[in-house]
Amino acid sequence: MPADPLALVGEHPRHEDDVLERIVTIVGRHAIPKGESHIGDDAAVLAPFVGEALISTDVAVLGVHLDGSLFPLEDLGFKAVAAAVSDLAAMGGRPRGAVIAVCSPPGTDLEELHRGVADAAAMTSCPIVGGDLAQSHDVAIAVTVFGECPGRGAVLRSGAQPGDTILVTGPLGRSAAGLRRRRAGAPLDDELVVAHRRPWPRLAEGVAARNAGVNAMMDLSDGLGLDLHRLCDSSKVGFFLGDVPVAAGATLEEAISGGEDYELLMTTNDPDRLRLIFLDRGLRAPISIGRVVQDQGQRTLSGEPLERRGFQHLL
Amino acid sequence: MPADPLALVGEHPRHEDDVLERIVTIVGRHAIPKGESHIGDDAAVLAPFVGEALISTDVAVLGVHLDGSLFPLEDLGFKAVAAAVSDLAAMGGRPRGAVIAVCSPPGTDLEELHRGVADAAAMTSCPIVGGDLAQSHDVAIAVTVFGECPGRGAVLRSGAQPGDTILVTGPLGRSAAGLRRRRAGAPLDDELVVAHRRPWPRLAEGVAARNAGVNAMMDLSDGLGLDLHRLCDSSKVGFFLGDVPVAAGATLEEAISGGEDYELLMTTNDPDRLRLIFLDRGLRAPISIGRVVQDQGQRTLSGEPLERRGFQHLL
Repeated sequence: MPADPLALVGEHPRHEDDVLERIVTIVGRHAIPKGESHIGDDAAVLAPFVGEALISTDVAVLGVHLDGSLFPLEDLGFKAVAAAVSDLAAMGGRPRGAVIAVCSPPGTDLEELHRGVADAAAMTSCPIVGGDLAQSHDVAIAVTVFGECPGRGAVLRSGAQPGDTILVTGPLGRSAAGLRRRRAGAPLDDELVVAHRRPWPRLAEGVAARNAGVNAMMDLSDGLGLDLHRLCDSSKVGFFLGDVPVAAGATLEEAISGGEDYELLMTTNDPDRLRLIFLDRGLRAPISIGRVVQDQGQRTLSGEPLERRGFQHLL
Repeated sequence: MPADPLALVGEHPRHEDDVLERIVTIVGRHAIPKGESHIGDDAAVLAPFVGEALISTDVAVLGVHLDGSLFPLEDLGFKAVAAAVSDLAAMGGRPRGAVIAVCSPPGTDLEELHRGVADAAAMTSCPIVGGDLAQSHDVAIAVTVFGECPGRGAVLRSGAQPGDTILVTGPLGRSAAGLRRRRAGAPLDDELVVAHRRPWPRLAEGVAARNAGVNAMMDLSDGLGLDLHRLCDSSKVGFFLGDVPVAAGATLEEAISGGEDYELLMTTNDPDRLRLIFLDRGLRAPISIGRVVQDQGQRTLSGEPLERRGFQHLL
């Protein structure tokens, strides 16, 4: 492109085509299904999708979404892919692929960043099928995932019904507790620090919940104290929470507003059936945390109003 | 998300949910097909794709891809969407939708940026179905488009055969000439300046070329002097170019290495059929510019070796 590049050229500037070639050896290791064409053309070509198609994009910026003084750069790549794949889990979908757009200053270790991308892609069976690179002052990565929803359609946020039981797929606050522990000097392989660095999208749980016919679902990316409000806004309902399941080592505040746990939040009128289907599939039983009510203004935790709180960017 | 935000908060910081609401009124004006769900859930839900699915991502950074002192911010949004949609055109596909990830410092006029996005989306019939926002020091936009290829499959770069005629969908160099003219003081509505600001993806031409059975195709985003080499690398062939069609007002060098013209580059063993199909559909006849040869080492323009030249990022 003809515009003037930023005056950013490092000591060892590298041409885009050369860098791409090395990245492809990192993220392009998966087998390519017959008839598909992934990295290297104008667009990736995938075999026809089964059922509805799902698309979501997530962007992560070094210094905003990850503190580079506490965590290796590959965690930024891992977390960005995991966050995006979690959006597919939240609809009850399964991944078909992802594309990665990266902005970075010259000299950034793009191979390290893409090792994290490749790890998350392998763990979630979501092949990286394309990407784009550009220069900038920040290191930023935008991950777009696409998936499919065979059979029963995707589960939206907007379907919660008064009387529904509200459930989550696991205890909350692990990610925020891990960040706190890392800041206090815990090693990178500390269990809670790993929960922060390597979130695990609840793909199997999402499919099970969709098959069980839950009425509404979303993932807890910004914290229960914000995301539950969003789900209830979408569904035009209120809630009362009886109890919030706090993960071992986390505080109640971390469980409510920490974010990045990526557990799924679900509402259903048949929690017994949901529990059964989870257990049948070898998944941990979901935890009931409260009930949906008709009055949008009633949004309480243990009888007290639950204010919106969680992570929001200032723009 | 719990990580510390950059110390970037402007005078009037705005919460993400509020900004999103205003952006949705700009990009979300299209009709949503029955059974689909676009902005507002964890992922967008689209009706099943017909045939192969195509995916591509493009990132554009203010100051790299667009000089903010010469052009309004909405041009960055327009160009990013147009560049991504052009990748679908280059496969012979038709758009189904796009998601937009934006990084920006506090105070950026995100509504202006998204007006450009909305204009390009409307002009290419590519609805914006989702997005994500984050803070950073740069203004950067990553556009991911997805499309479908009903009937005959997508056209790759790798299918060029020795003996094929090489064609382009129009004369080259308009975008680079427009940038040069703008730098010299030409107004924003100068015809060539508009060609730079508002590139038009060759969607109808791409579908016509696919239906005509061209062997290889790509879009000219980084200039013929780079992109023709890439196509021939993919196809493991060489080329000789007889002539390069220079657009009125552009120089030969701008036509060869200017980039951002987004004309399509095609090779076929039946150029007469290709021309006929284009004319039948009311499209301008494609222009023959040379021939594919077996020897990968032979890559010439008017008998002289054509060195790789065009836009590459330094990373």
